Amino acid sequence: MDRFEPNLRIPGPTALPPTVREAGARQMINHRGPEFAAMLARITEGMKPYFGTTGDVAVLSCAGTGGLEAAVVNTLSPRDRVLGVSIGSFGDRFAKIASVYGADVVKLDVAWGQAADPVAVREAIERQGPFRAALLTHNETSTGVMNPIPELAAAIREVNADTLILVDSVSALGAVPFAMDEWGIDLVVTGSQKAWMAAPGLAMVAASDRGWAAMETARMPRFYLDLRRHRDSHAEGQTPWTPALAVLYQVDEGLRLMQAEGADGVFARHEACAAAARAGLAALGFELFADPRFASRTVTCVRIPEGVDWKSVNAGVRRRGVVLAGGQGKLTGKVFRLGHLGSVTVEEILGAIGALESVLIEHGRDVEPGSAVGTAQAAALESLGVGRRAAATA
Amino acid sequence: MDRFEPNLRIPGPTALPPTVREAGARQMINHRGPEFAAMLARITEGMKPYFGTTGDVAVLSCAGTGGLEAAVVNTLSPRDRVLGVSIGSFGDRFAKIASVYGADVVKLDVAWGQAADPVAVREAIERQGPFRAALLTHNETSTGVMNPIPELAAAIREVNADTLILVDSVSALGAVPFAMDEWGIDLVVTGSQKAWMAAPGLAMVAASDRGWAAMETARMPRFYLDLRRHRDSHAEGQTPWTPALAVLYQVDEGLRLMQAEGADGVFARHEACAAAARAGLAALGFELFADPRFASRTVTCVRIPEGVDWKSVNAGVRRRGVVLAGGQGKLTGKVFRLGHLGSVTVEEILGAIGALESVLIEHGRDVEPGSAVGTAQAAALESLGVGRRAAATA
Repeated sequence: MDRFEPNLRIPGPTALPPTVREAGARQMINHRGPEFAAMLARITEGMKPYFGTTGDVAVLSCAGTGGLEAAVVNTLSPRDRVLGVSIGSFGDRFAKIASVYGADVVKLDVAWGQAADPVAVREAIERQGPFRAALLTHNETSTGVMNPIPELAAAIREVNADTLILVDSVSALGAVPFAMDEWGIDLVVTGSQKAWMAAPGLAMVAASDRGWAAMETARMPRFYLDLRRHRDSHAEGQTPWTPALAVLYQVDEGLRLMQAEGADGVFARHEACAAAARAGLAALGFELFADPRFASRTVTCVRIPEGVDWKSVNAGVRRRGVVLAGGQGKLTGKVFRLGHLGSVTVEEILGAIGALESVLIEHGRDVEPGSAVGTAQAAALESLGVGRRAAATA
Repeated sequence: MDRFEPNLRIPGPTALPPTVREAGARQMINHRGPEFAAMLARITEGMKPYFGTTGDVAVLSCAGTGGLEAAVVNTLSPRDRVLGVSIGSFGDRFAKIASVYGADVVKLDVAWGQAADPVAVREAIERQGPFRAALLTHNETSTGVMNPIPELAAAIREVNADTLILVDSVSALGAVPFAMDEWGIDLVVTGSQKAWMAAPGLAMVAASDRGWAAMETARMPRFYLDLRRHRDSHAEGQTPWTPALAVLYQVDEGLRLMQAEGADGVFARHEACAAAARAGLAALGFELFADPRFASRTVTCVRIPEGVDWKSVNAGVRRRGVVLAGGQGKLTGKVFRLGHLGSVTVEEILGAIGALESVLIEHGRDVEPGSAVGTAQAAALESLGVGRRAAATA
């Protein structure tokens, strides 16, 4: 496998484009100097349209999980009542963080593979509310489900107008449209190693006016992840603590590539890759784990059927340079996941489907050679609106 | 300045050697795979001799300040009595973190520029103790003072045998000898962008048996910075959350370079660079801010004399490609700092002293051309034990 670049199809870290890799090799600079200030401003300003906000964006040097912790500890106080809407591992983690810091968390556990239902959320609040905050997962990486965030936010506001709505969009923001100001979301978290085409190490957090105001009275302890310290320091072109500079270099370059492509192009590419992944995997006989109505546009999770020796299939796929992700938590051994976010191309998805097709045929599965790859390609082209042209007429 | 590589003489981030830079450009891998596990093990095992421990080392994706927070929140409970020995900005920060999380902190504030005195520490404990923990700064980056850690630890143990001794060695470990097991230190924090020749983004934390045991009962809330989660995950070749992969690549390569040089060589090089910096700056008329007995071996802080227009001098130095650090906190405008840690060479120090010498002469200061550079070089050679040979005799 050393001979060629692996086709890294896990849902993050994602493969880095060449110029992003090169950015990671840049020499260090003074993080209290003007060159850094200019780069930080490019990043925070460049991300605002993806968040869908005109408010401040904070850049924290930590993983996405650190960003989730920042969301909780900056806006809440011990014993605050919190609704933790969980549709998988990362929803559980978000709720767990709130519990660890002393919030009184009521879990709304949705069956894994399903999205949260706005009606069920509204009823939970009516029955058990009011809540100081609701924790939502935008894209649940463990199950490949994307929640209907604007509908969920509207349902929450309908019954609890002042509830803080905190959203984990670590593995979605930047890859799909988001409009936090319009949807009335109070805080959104994303991570550098997902849609942003960079290495892990940074979490970006945006908050609404209500979110920033909540930080003035929130009493959970915080220091390293203090968002107000970040906002105030960013206003002077700095970060409160030494930032993960090399990752900022990479995010800066990733954003440049995204701006060159245009947000609509980025979103359409993710949609086409998702369509190709779903169609190709279905053609190979893999059943989507997610409710198809809410299938994620950044990661596809499918069941491993009876009779498929996954370890052996996965080893064969790896020999072809394709790296897939197994199941997480209680799904270990039951599903596998194919990531399609960041710098992903339709051609990389075709390669991944092709590797699976080859290995399954070798393993004696009844698959028509080329059928899954062809199906995936057709789905991508349909998603992109590319149809067969009629023969030219004079 | 774009024409050449800057001579980055701030006390971190430090300039990266070419192969470390290249490591930062490596493609992403699966952080749950065997290649990552092998790298993580190389890093944690490779660092143990520098910590001077046979215990576990945790690798956290955060700045050094996150490592200090981890030290506090993993070992302490709200209302624990804590002695915060502060000799500058970073000592203040360490104590502040403990306060924010509800510890009852007694500060022992030492005059900036001085080291902590073991007798004064012992008396503070006798007068105001017992304390659950003592917070010590090994190298105070803001003042250029290096504390006598073994003597301070012995003084603490003399009166409070069970006090947890937590040490911020962010800007020293790896550059100077350390022996946490032998000295009876319970927890030590370091950061990737200092001695380790890598970009910022990782904090490494080692704890003693007493330190790990304290984590079993400590009640301060923690999740992202939970050291036990890191230790348990490391035992399986992983990190609990997605790690700052590119920085791990760089630390892995930095450690390889350090091992090739040998720890004794690394330490001697730092000592020689420190000697050159101090002698060269003294020859230029700059007075050491630190008590010379405790002058840091990784950063030199000097007073800006009356009559020196620092902004103008610094601009001239920058035009020559040398980046110095100003004063921090209450020392802003009163001192400047010259960092000499990480991949630093004596020749880089000579270049920095040379730039200052040129600019000061241009500004009309009475400096004999070549004298400061010559003095710096002589001090480095003396430190390295390189003397003039007598003429060969038969």
